[in-house]
Amino acid sequence: METSSHRTDIVIFGGHGDLAFRKLMPALYNLRLAGFIDKQSRIISISRRPMNRETHIALMQSKLEEFISADIFDADFFADFSEQLEIAYIDFQDPSSYANLKIFLDMQTDRERIYYLSTASDFFGSIAQNLHTCDLITEQSRVVLEKPLGRSLDTSRKINQEVLQYFSESQIFRIDHYLGKDTVQNIMALRFSNRIFMPVWGSRDVDHIQITVAESVGVEGRAGYYDKYGAMRDMIQNHLIQLLCLVAMEPPCSLDANNVRDEKVKVLRSFRKMTPSDIEEKTVRAQYTKGFSQGEAVPGYLDSEEIKGSTTETFAAIRVDIDNWRWNGVPFYIRSGKRMREKNSEIVIHFKSVPHSIFPHEGKCLSENKLVITLQPNESINLKMMNKIPGISSDMRLQEVDLELNSHDTTKVIKHEAYERLLLDIIKNNPTLFMRLDEVEEAWKWADAIIQGWQANQSIMKTYPAGTDGPSAAVSLIAKDGRNWHEDGC
Amino acid sequence: METSSHRTDIVIFGGHGDLAFRKLMPALYNLRLAGFIDKQSRIISISRRPMNRETHIALMQSKLEEFISADIFDADFFADFSEQLEIAYIDFQDPSSYANLKIFLDMQTDRERIYYLSTASDFFGSIAQNLHTCDLITEQSRVVLEKPLGRSLDTSRKINQEVLQYFSESQIFRIDHYLGKDTVQNIMALRFSNRIFMPVWGSRDVDHIQITVAESVGVEGRAGYYDKYGAMRDMIQNHLIQLLCLVAMEPPCSLDANNVRDEKVKVLRSFRKMTPSDIEEKTVRAQYTKGFSQGEAVPGYLDSEEIKGSTTETFAAIRVDIDNWRWNGVPFYIRSGKRMREKNSEIVIHFKSVPHSIFPHEGKCLSENKLVITLQPNESINLKMMNKIPGISSDMRLQEVDLELNSHDTTKVIKHEAYERLLLDIIKNNPTLFMRLDEVEEAWKWADAIIQGWQANQSIMKTYPAGTDGPSAAVSLIAKDGRNWHEDGC
Repeated sequence: METSSHRTDIVIFGGHGDLAFRKLMPALYNLRLAGFIDKQSRIISISRRPMNRETHIALMQSKLEEFISADIFDADFFADFSEQLEIAYIDFQDPSSYANLKIFLDMQTDRERIYYLSTASDFFGSIAQNLHTCDLITEQSRVVLEKPLGRSLDTSRKINQEVLQYFSESQIFRIDHYLGKDTVQNIMALRFSNRIFMPVWGSRDVDHIQITVAESVGVEGRAGYYDKYGAMRDMIQNHLIQLLCLVAMEPPCSLDANNVRDEKVKVLRSFRKMTPSDIEEKTVRAQYTKGFSQGEAVPGYLDSEEIKGSTTETFAAIRVDIDNWRWNGVPFYIRSGKRMREKNSEIVIHFKSVPHSIFPHEGKCLSENKLVITLQPNESINLKMMNKIPGISSDMRLQEVDLELNSHDTTKVIKHEAYERLLLDIIKNNPTLFMRLDEVEEAWKWADAIIQGWQANQSIMKTYPAGTDGPSAAVSLIAKDGRNWHEDGC
Repeated sequence: METSSHRTDIVIFGGHGDLAFRKLMPALYNLRLAGFIDKQSRIISISRRPMNRETHIALMQSKLEEFISADIFDADFFADFSEQLEIAYIDFQDPSSYANLKIFLDMQTDRERIYYLSTASDFFGSIAQNLHTCDLITEQSRVVLEKPLGRSLDTSRKINQEVLQYFSESQIFRIDHYLGKDTVQNIMALRFSNRIFMPVWGSRDVDHIQITVAESVGVEGRAGYYDKYGAMRDMIQNHLIQLLCLVAMEPPCSLDANNVRDEKVKVLRSFRKMTPSDIEEKTVRAQYTKGFSQGEAVPGYLDSEEIKGSTTETFAAIRVDIDNWRWNGVPFYIRSGKRMREKNSEIVIHFKSVPHSIFPHEGKCLSENKLVITLQPNESINLKMMNKIPGISSDMRLQEVDLELNSHDTTKVIKHEAYERLLLDIIKNNPTLFMRLDEVEEAWKWADAIIQGWQANQSIMKTYPAGTDGPSAAVSLIAKDGRNWHEDGC
């Protein structure tokens, strides 16, 4: 087993927040269990309320018991792990409150330091400033910025500039947990290690590409927070665009972080600018109305008192055109929404049909190859091809075969959560899977133009009943190009 | 279930021969059982010794019990089937002996007639002539010619011309049972219905192609017969070259027999002519010496008394170059032999590696895609691709995944023997999978040139111990081009 020699102090701002409980602490627990974190490393949770260490450890144990599967949580191991757990109370905006943290961190000078900012991004600037003021930023320090990083190019740029006053770009890890999924990384492996994908990965052989991130949950309980963002800022500008870049990018010179990010940003710069009429024709925004989710009656988005009259979209579908040699004429249809029929995140590379079929066939959908990369609910990569239906009949009839490329059967491995991979990369100072400033800004430029068009009502807000596949306008968006959203089996 | 409305009289010359017992009668039994043969159809076995019908039926029952798997043979069904079984005594070369057959066939005039010549090809001419003399050839008659069809272009041409005096080319079915295998037909389905194979199927992306037909059996007991042929005439000139044509041919206009055969013959015409120095460098011939087959001591080929001093090869390996646009620079390495380590027939499409790998990798063989089409011992089609080894390690390590394209799990179908498919095609008058005269002649032209070079000793006869992978010269043949024969796992 690989073990880490990095002794690292990991400081989590928002250490008693939901993300810390659900994802970060379980990931650190598992990394330590797997030997990837040194026993001397310390994990310091920053709380905004004073709390003593014993209470903190008890709280952590209860949360880990809740969020780690029962067969993995081990009370004996936790007793050992808990020796690494610390707590510090900090008022983010009060520099004097950082003093205890400084005393504690300075006790050990051989440590690399990771400041994980799992707070609202409004605080990122002042936290960075106060870390600097209190002389807490060493050369071996890194800072992790959780999304959402602002809500527009301007606000994002402001936050980034504040952080960049105290941390260099190479010290900043902008996290997108989608990129930590094994299957997402496998996109690069598949594309750049298989000769048979090399010539087909472009406009000559690809008809179009679909990226869907559908959630079945709604925003009840956090509508006030969500309403500041909406589907575009919350999902599309980051997760979907990142996935699109991995699918669309040219082969990088190497797996080195900047080489990969150079290629991703080139894709973003090739996004065709949207005119007002493009926004009308190529974008769909919608809000869910009351309906049934998994058989249960659920309210509509606007039924929440606190957001009455909101114009924030809970669903968006967009046709993206990429103006470069590889993708000329190949539309990317992307969509994301809340309260959809089922949780489903997938990328579908839809190849063209053969130029002429010499086989009898029933139904058009049978004749096209597809590569379906599924991220949720379960990760898989399937290549859908055609072969002959076995039998002695003279007329060669064809069927679709479904090839699983990502079979975990071949290698018995423990499944790691995306956050484990990403935290390990942060510990190892490998920023390949994190977003560079120029990527974030290019994505915002594109998203802002669409959001502004929506604000100018260039695309009318639609509705869709909760528990459905979105508004009919999203079906029309792709249907007017003679295509369909990917459904199982066709 | 599909049923045949063709009422057909099937006349088998060589009706008490080995092929009839092992393959033809079991295939007809199964076709009848599956409803593909009309109950009114008759199966007339031609015997060279007089025998009454009861004895014939008893003989057929004992042979079917031997050669059909026990769970399929059904005595009740056989009782029904046996009503269709007839016997006729004929001395092939004596026209008067055909009289009884004529009387019998003429009793029913609504029947199509199939004359299946499962005899030595020396008799084909006189059988055709006598069928004509006795006015047994109707417009609705077809003749099936079993291989080997002569042993050179001249002898093959002579036989074909004799038969063609009495049957038109469209009435002649030259059978190659390899083409009846479902997986062989799937080659066409895969190639011409999958867009992702379209651009990679040629010299830009294919490094080379291998075709192997290895038998573990020797020729004991039939050395005298085999010695007239050898690996080139017995296997390569027909089976291997046919497989090669299916892999190499351009897309046909349609699945219509002549369109498919037009494309196959174009491949044959593009075979690069062999000069004497080509024959030295690109061909290997060998005979097996004593050794161990499946752990049992076995004699060498020349140890058989009747063929002392023979110069017939039991193994041949040849590099074939195809001079056309698609395959320029892509060698086809083909080999076939008796008494090899194991029974194994396969076609391997060996793709090039990606132009530059950005991944850490161990061992060259991991980086190349392969399509492996296995015909024996079990039919399968596997696409070998690369993906990421799952896990959270930062260095993306790759592994080969093995995708089964020909899974019979998806459709529950009865496995049919190659002869069943081909007999059904003959009954349905579909000649797509049968060899046209020009194909046979082109294949002989190419084979003859090599055989003549061997007779002039342009390539020295090698030896290989029984139970091995052939002579070391066959390894050198491909190794001098920097390649290796495909073995499991690499």
